[in-house]
Amino acid sequence: MENFQFYAPTKIFFGEEQLNNLPDILQEFGEKVLLVYGGGSIKRNGLYDAVLKLSEDVFEIQELSGVEPNPRIETVRKGVALCREKKVDVILAVGGGSTIDCAKAIAAGVFYEGDPWDFTSDSSLITKALPLVSVLTLAATGSEMNSGAVISDMAKNEKLSLGNSLTIPKASILDPTYTFTVPEYQTAAGSADIMSHLIENYFKQTRGAEVQDRLAEGLMRTVLQYTPIALKTPDNYEARANLMWASSLGLNGLTGRGKGGSWSCHAIEHELSAFYDITHGVGLAIITPRWMEHILSEQTVEKFVSFAVNVMGLSLIDDRFALAREGIRCLKNHFTSWGIPMTLVDVGIDGEKLELMANKAVEHNTLDKAYVPLYAEDVLSILKASLND
Amino acid sequence: MENFQFYAPTKIFFGEEQLNNLPDILQEFGEKVLLVYGGGSIKRNGLYDAVLKLSEDVFEIQELSGVEPNPRIETVRKGVALCREKKVDVILAVGGGSTIDCAKAIAAGVFYEGDPWDFTSDSSLITKALPLVSVLTLAATGSEMNSGAVISDMAKNEKLSLGNSLTIPKASILDPTYTFTVPEYQTAAGSADIMSHLIENYFKQTRGAEVQDRLAEGLMRTVLQYTPIALKTPDNYEARANLMWASSLGLNGLTGRGKGGSWSCHAIEHELSAFYDITHGVGLAIITPRWMEHILSEQTVEKFVSFAVNVMGLSLIDDRFALAREGIRCLKNHFTSWGIPMTLVDVGIDGEKLELMANKAVEHNTLDKAYVPLYAEDVLSILKASLND
Repeated sequence: MENFQFYAPTKIFFGEEQLNNLPDILQEFGEKVLLVYGGGSIKRNGLYDAVLKLSEDVFEIQELSGVEPNPRIETVRKGVALCREKKVDVILAVGGGSTIDCAKAIAAGVFYEGDPWDFTSDSSLITKALPLVSVLTLAATGSEMNSGAVISDMAKNEKLSLGNSLTIPKASILDPTYTFTVPEYQTAAGSADIMSHLIENYFKQTRGAEVQDRLAEGLMRTVLQYTPIALKTPDNYEARANLMWASSLGLNGLTGRGKGGSWSCHAIEHELSAFYDITHGVGLAIITPRWMEHILSEQTVEKFVSFAVNVMGLSLIDDRFALAREGIRCLKNHFTSWGIPMTLVDVGIDGEKLELMANKAVEHNTLDKAYVPLYAEDVLSILKASLND
Repeated sequence: MENFQFYAPTKIFFGEEQLNNLPDILQEFGEKVLLVYGGGSIKRNGLYDAVLKLSEDVFEIQELSGVEPNPRIETVRKGVALCREKKVDVILAVGGGSTIDCAKAIAAGVFYEGDPWDFTSDSSLITKALPLVSVLTLAATGSEMNSGAVISDMAKNEKLSLGNSLTIPKASILDPTYTFTVPEYQTAAGSADIMSHLIENYFKQTRGAEVQDRLAEGLMRTVLQYTPIALKTPDNYEARANLMWASSLGLNGLTGRGKGGSWSCHAIEHELSAFYDITHGVGLAIITPRWMEHILSEQTVEKFVSFAVNVMGLSLIDDRFALAREGIRCLKNHFTSWGIPMTLVDVGIDGEKLELMANKAVEHNTLDKAYVPLYAEDVLSILKASLND
């Protein structure tokens, strides 16, 4: 296990009707609130009205709506200007990971003289941030309980990360019933995103971080257990609750702190989204099994055996490579059974920019420090294998 | 899953030489430090000197030493008086769970006009507390990352809990090398304590909290894996690191929040310690398998099957009761193999006060809200079964 710092101070309010705590939560930080949200889903499902009803008498509320699924730097800039103009005290993000990510970048940008895009190359430029509270509507990114945000500049075809301990939400309200209306496709993509976070942390070079790996296995098994149930019966509270809590714990440091090295599939997927604006979780589901097949070797096979046995529930057999491949096949089958399109062609990506994206993935990330170091030719090979079945 | 709040804001500094962060950590809270510790172990292993060397030039340090293994209310009162007299800004607890627990009670007692023992019947009386920083030297109680403290009044034969979010340590330094010198008996007792926290949360009436249960299973497997290694090679870093991190995560809310009801074995063990001052983890190891045997029934057998398969690694067989009993037997075997004396007689407790302790356990706790409700006659039966093999 490597040395690490763990810091997950977000106060979580989990369960039905936890929104009633919102006024008390916000009051601690001030009166002027910037309400950040995405499209119309929170208006359709009544959450928007509920938030306003609870808070509009007590707080002065500004709104920033229309945050994109891969949130844009332009929206961040708009939010920063609004916060400055209206002297906002606290940001309230109501939505999924994209909305919360956008709110984090705004929270940090308010106190920064330069352009918030600068944070994507150096997050230590964040020296102060507005307090952030979130109301989560999608089990996926874990943004509700960590510091990270991913922001896109489509003009440059760039999708990059930012954040430090100042951008961790102060409190997050996690009511599983808000995810009852999440469409099948987004539910599946969200679960694939959770799985990917856990897989990225599971497959790392650091040895002997068994606490982290046992926790990751447990969370992965939970996601595999409940995703089909949530897809079949979207209002199954138990399924939605377990997926929601797994999403937060899947990326709050529990499975990653103490294990070094870079992530692989997220680095590659961010290029897909930056060039083609595809759904993040879908991109990850497509890339992950191909990446696994690419890196399976004598050096990695034991880890794949653990994955096959402890996550996929397969029985130990003598042929370790056969078992490893069967574990990868099981993962792909899960994604397929969730209705995720499992090739790049299926999501409208042809072979034209694969080389460009491969080069960018290597340029934007330290993929030479990944579980198995990846170079542009590796990424290209993984992308090519992802094109078709 | 039940509604819950989760709040674990302690900043964890994990790994070798993390003590170097101590001055920066303390500086945030002030200059006047109360250093709380137990017996001579931190003097023998050099930690006391290291702490002083790092901090004595910058901070004004008062000392409260001699905190007992089951920390006494008298020591808490002494600490409170010292903090008031010296206008202490921050408490630094260096030791295991007892030292940290004592420091928590002091931190809260400083701002309370009455006697800190009052907190054991009503922790909402804690409305302000001094900031607390801990340096952990024993993997066991999880006190380094939660709000709880257990304090004893031996004059009354009472061992009771206190704490709320104000008593959560602000920061904890977890350097596994500090546990290299922990004697075999204490190492084993510490691991039994971790196991007990996880078992108490695992066996609850709440259904469908699979995230919590999968995490608990993973942590239990880690403890079972590494305890024999730490006992055999006390300076095995990987073993000590995994045990230490498992201890913190074993009782910071991850496995308990979202699951309702009272604990059983801790309630019973606290009476053993209150009357006989035995080692907490040893008492838990003795009680737990007997409690399990007592509550095994048609209603609970499925949970015991999960425990047998997912924690003990047994294969699923048709006879569920046989499998459940085999799981309990495995747990007892683990404790025995760690060198823990596994009967009350072995730790100097005869039958004399069993009935009194059974009555007190029921009086001090809501055992009627336990996984399987327990009444005085149940507790007595469990205690009697624990007397001898």
